[in-house]
Amino acid sequence: MAQVAILMGSKSDLAVVKPAVEILKNFGVKTEVRVISAHRTPEEAHDFSLNAIKNGTEVIICAAGKAAHLGGVIAANTTLPVIGLPVKTDMMGGLDSLLSIVQMPSGIPVATVGVNAGENAGLLALQILGVKYPEIAKKLFDYKKKMRDKINSDDDALQTELGQF
Amino acid sequence: MAQVAILMGSKSDLAVVKPAVEILKNFGVKTEVRVISAHRTPEEAHDFSLNAIKNGTEVIICAAGKAAHLGGVIAANTTLPVIGLPVKTDMMGGLDSLLSIVQMPSGIPVATVGVNAGENAGLLALQILGVKYPEIAKKLFDYKKKMRDKINSDDDALQTELGQF
Amino acid sequence: MAQVAILMGSKSDLAVVKPAVEILKNFGVKTEVRVISAHRTPEEAHDFSLNAIKNGTEVIICAAGKAAHLGGVIAANTTLPVIGLPVKTDMMGGLDSLLSIVQMPSGIPVATVGVNAGENAGLLALQILGVKYPEIAKKLFDYKKKMRDKINSDDDALQTELGQF
Amino acid sequence: MAQVAILMGSKSDLAVVKPAVEILKNFGVKTEVRVISAHRTPEEAHDFSLNAIKNGTEVIICAAGKAAHLGGVIAANTTLPVIGLPVKTDMMGGLDSLLSIVQMPSGIPVATVGVNAGENAGLLALQILGVKYPEIAKKLFDYKKKMRDKINSDDDALQTELGQF
Amino acid sequence: MAQVAILMGSKSDLAVVKPAVEILKNFGVKTEVRVISAHRTPEEAHDFSLNAIKNGTEVIICAAGKAAHLGGVIAANTTLPVIGLPVKTDMMGGLDSLLSIVQMPSGIPVATVGVNAGENAGLLALQILGVKYPEIAKKLFDYKKKMRDKINSDDDALQTELGQF
Amino acid sequence: MAQVAILMGSKSDLAVVKPAVEILKNFGVKTEVRVISAHRTPEEAHDFSLNAIKNGTEVIICAAGKAAHLGGVIAANTTLPVIGLPVKTDMMGGLDSLLSIVQMPSGIPVATVGVNAGENAGLLALQILGVKYPEIAKKLFDYKKKMRDKINSDDDALQTELGQF
Amino acid sequence: MAQVAILMGSKSDLAVVKPAVEILKNFGVKTEVRVISAHRTPEEAHDFSLNAIKNGTEVIICAAGKAAHLGGVIAANTTLPVIGLPVKTDMMGGLDSLLSIVQMPSGIPVATVGVNAGENAGLLALQILGVKYPEIAKKLFDYKKKMRDKINSDDDALQTELGQF
Amino acid sequence: MAQVAILMGSKSDLAVVKPAVEILKNFGVKTEVRVISAHRTPEEAHDFSLNAIKNGTEVIICAAGKAAHLGGVIAANTTLPVIGLPVKTDMMGGLDSLLSIVQMPSGIPVATVGVNAGENAGLLALQILGVKYPEIAKKLFDYKKKMRDKINSDDDALQTELGQF
Repeated sequence: MAQVAILMGSKSDLAVVKPAVEILKNFGVKTEVRVISAHRTPEEAHDFSLNAIKNGTEVIICAAGKAAHLGGVIAANTTLPVIGLPVKTDMMGGLDSLLSIVQMPSGIPVATVGVNAGENAGLLALQILGVKYPEIAKKLFDYKKKMRDKINSDDDALQTELGQF
Repeated sequence: MAQVAILMGSKSDLAVVKPAVEILKNFGVKTEVRVISAHRTPEEAHDFSLNAIKNGTEVIICAAGKAAHLGGVIAANTTLPVIGLPVKTDMMGGLDSLLSIVQMPSGIPVATVGVNAGENAGLLALQILGVKYPEIAKKLFDYKKKMRDKINSDDDALQTELGQF
Repeated sequence: MAQVAILMGSKSDLAVVKPAVEILKNFGVKTEVRVISAHRTPEEAHDFSLNAIKNGTEVIICAAGKAAHLGGVIAANTTLPVIGLPVKTDMMGGLDSLLSIVQMPSGIPVATVGVNAGENAGLLALQILGVKYPEIAKKLFDYKKKMRDKINSDDDALQTELGQF
Repeated sequence: MAQVAILMGSKSDLAVVKPAVEILKNFGVKTEVRVISAHRTPEEAHDFSLNAIKNGTEVIICAAGKAAHLGGVIAANTTLPVIGLPVKTDMMGGLDSLLSIVQMPSGIPVATVGVNAGENAGLLALQILGVKYPEIAKKLFDYKKKMRDKINSDDDALQTELGQF
Repeated sequence: MAQVAILMGSKSDLAVVKPAVEILKNFGVKTEVRVISAHRTPEEAHDFSLNAIKNGTEVIICAAGKAAHLGGVIAANTTLPVIGLPVKTDMMGGLDSLLSIVQMPSGIPVATVGVNAGENAGLLALQILGVKYPEIAKKLFDYKKKMRDKINSDDDALQTELGQF
Repeated sequence: MAQVAILMGSKSDLAVVKPAVEILKNFGVKTEVRVISAHRTPEEAHDFSLNAIKNGTEVIICAAGKAAHLGGVIAANTTLPVIGLPVKTDMMGGLDSLLSIVQMPSGIPVATVGVNAGENAGLLALQILGVKYPEIAKKLFDYKKKMRDKINSDDDALQTELGQF
Repeated sequence: MAQVAILMGSKSDLAVVKPAVEILKNFGVKTEVRVISAHRTPEEAHDFSLNAIKNGTEVIICAAGKAAHLGGVIAANTTLPVIGLPVKTDMMGGLDSLLSIVQMPSGIPVATVGVNAGENAGLLALQILGVKYPEIAKKLFDYKKKMRDKINSDDDALQTELGQF
Repeated sequence: MAQVAILMGSKSDLAVVKPAVEILKNFGVKTEVRVISAHRTPEEAHDFSLNAIKNGTEVIICAAGKAAHLGGVIAANTTLPVIGLPVKTDMMGGLDSLLSIVQMPSGIPVATVGVNAGENAGLLALQILGVKYPEIAKKLFDYKKKMRDKINSDDDALQTELGQF
């Protein structure tokens, strides 16, 4: 069964991470959520990444802000795909978090999504799992269809609104 | 057999893309390389993404610069994981390319790597494939070991150099 | 009769778009307003742009935020002038939206206005139509005069205020 | 007959402007090219914009760098569409030019293209003229087709190259 | 008698301008405050700058935001020193205003102060006048002394506070 | 007789400062040029600013790069107008120098010109002196006329060139 | 006994400085807190730095915002390590403060911590003192352990929360 | 005897690090120089930092570029002061490196110097050691004097040059 781990550098990042947790639960994917800090609990980070494959984890999402090293530190010790989720800060809207995650040196990629893009982090994990698990790919296809229906129904509602506008 | 498609928005992006092609070839992954532009060949982009799964593609890498829409346009029509590779420009070192790729709206993630990080785009594709194909994960493990050996041998060489310094 | 289409990537962009709708209505220009997403409804975007000329549209305004591809995607399939309206985000005040819209590759321009500059998007559409329709150019001339009068009356009011200041 | 004016703030901007001149000539559009500075020849700028319509001009392109005010100054005195072409500088790749042009106050839009995007400035002028002149719209359609063919032939060439790669 | 003119591009800039007005009044300098827009009242801007010297103005302060051209437009037609006061915007905290004002082309300087730095605009005008009028220089010397006393008294107060802290 | 001091933080800034020296010499203004560093020769900086008025200096230009404190340090100890000239660096084209100079706290303005804008620093000094010395204002008027003639002659030359283009 | 001085450019910076004061007090380090401005009380700044060593100070923390010169001005006159603490501003989240502090010219380093990172400024002072005073290094070791325990207990709490989530 | 360790993430950073090595050698401080990568040799980084105190190291300098995690990773496991030296990149002149190093979360400071500021990294290490070792503080005092003499002699040379200018 597919399995995703979601790590956050601080418990205060939970609000950003929740949409990822929710979409993974909606897709029926087993999800472990952890507070592990690259800087404050380096041993835990080290152990987690070394044992991730053995523990059945298939994709890891790492949310962190500012000098956001969590994704890189986890990626250093595993061959699993690591998704980096930059948390918004006061520094140019999270540009510090984004650059600290995406600009990884050659050899150690971190698959970065947009600032505070928790849902996209979850969806990217599902797309990665979908390569292996056809039933997840199938559900993503349905999800895409629902998004399309939602936009089209927003479009219809707008026509009504604007008639009165 | 694993299969990756690498798309570039302009043939001038080939130098950035080559390290991705090379590492995928070194890992023995079947790799298709295409020039497809979101803006100049929208039909081809549309057809490619709609048929990617059917054609056996499992991961798509999209390299583009400036208002780099290729990754997003491809991701719009497929549930496959799409890796975005921002190409360096004159605008703040490629910040335009990076933001145009990573800041995707909710629902359509693009897994973004660093600016001009062709090798990391290839490695991320391999990590994604490694979830499904254990032999690729195994090779990634060896690759990591070689990187480590390389740094350690650089460290040894430095000690010799500095002795003469 | 002149005809403008205003597209927004998400219904939440309506507040940014409204000043464009209003000024076009004030000028008596037929205006179609739609929710169409480059990423969530790519087919609708594709169809809209391919049929825009046939449907009598003469100028298209596209409002979008973050990795704002809507303008580029629409411009890819039509020869009509496309006006890009970047929506403010948390990332440096909308610099992501602005760069994703204005930095188009050679061959596919998008006429970009300022971040959240809905009124200017509408006025630019009117200026473009004014090349063809002299009565619109005439109304723009009057509009400019009113702006001038408004500033001059603000200036007068200020003199009174400052006398008491 | 369609008529475009291209203004540059300094003769040193000619290289950026030339692709605009060329594409307009290729489309058979009468093109006037001028060196007029918002700051060094304010009277000439003032006179030019006041008389542009009378002189038969239908679209104005303004190229300028750094605190690039030319487009705004011209737009202040005419109802014609004004296209702003930001010239690359040393300040973050021309971000100063871009922001000075695109961030116009409400009431006076400048249709901005990318930094150094001379060809796009010319194409945008042609798209604007195409609203009025069907033969220009027709040529733009052919131009789009040629771009598509060019990308597809680049794609074919790449396949050959990579076979030897 | 010394005389300063303060221009703002929009009446909404008054709050930013007020500290300049106040300090000039406190120093007994005759101050004219005007709403004049480079883009919406170009004729008034033109006339103002051409006649400024004749009207007895000795320094001009221009406050504007976004693509802030007012200072440059005024400086184009006068040899008086022009102080540019960038108004804060949503775009990176007013970086657009700042760059549009400070990055003037060679030949037409605008003496730029910090974003929203109304008091400093006023003080700079006073320093410029102080070169000619010794009594203003004298008052500036006293003003500096008061600032120093204020900081030193803040320092004393802090020692008391921290004793209880 | 008018007198300007030009300070640079490092002798390597001389190339940026030279256009200021030249224009001041051309205007016949007595000019002192010094290498004084806010950080490496703080005593000299302190003494210079405390004695500037007594020594007959009327305007001070300070050129510096990176964390460019020279202008602020000089302004702290004098009531003379201080012009800040930011020197280009590798950090976003000199944005570090610009912000370190222009963003002065309330009470201590530095009149900032553009990055590497040596000539404008000199011209601003002349405009300030022109408030007191009518003959300098007169020469600035002539200078402006020459600039205008130069642009107009560039415009004429362009017409000839483009005829052959 | 170890001794740290904390300087702030304005009393309004106290909230940013407080976490530094607190952690130093918790570690039992004698701490002097002062309001001293590089620009408004240059004499006091000068005297403070010249006498710091004589007064027993071993590390100096300087908090300042915008064109934040305090750290550099203090570092110019002492060989003590100076820690720069950038205060958040409206300009890109404090990028102006950060660059004004960190980008010091060669010869005069300022040890910079993150924007508004008061606690880290205090901890860095403690780490520096810990090189000399083993008992401080010992306490830092315990502090690190407490941080680790805190994160681990946050992680435990999260597991409970998510069980109900 | 004082002892400093200098770590670089890649041997290609040696040119940036060399000025630090040289100044430490000139001051007679024992210096260890190592290539250790946070991402490619995480075990070596971990071991180094855990054993640094035991091995007699008193200050650690970490040079790295892009998503520069080395300083943070080392600081996570030691109570020694860690100096971060950001290496210039193509991304806005090294802003990515700078933000990845300086914006550390609360609890784990990294003492950051300017981009490519190798000499300042070395000097900061010496200032830190100077708190403990008076002979180093004494040498820093002499070093400062030499810098001052150098600037003053540059100033003298300039006067000669300008006489001929």
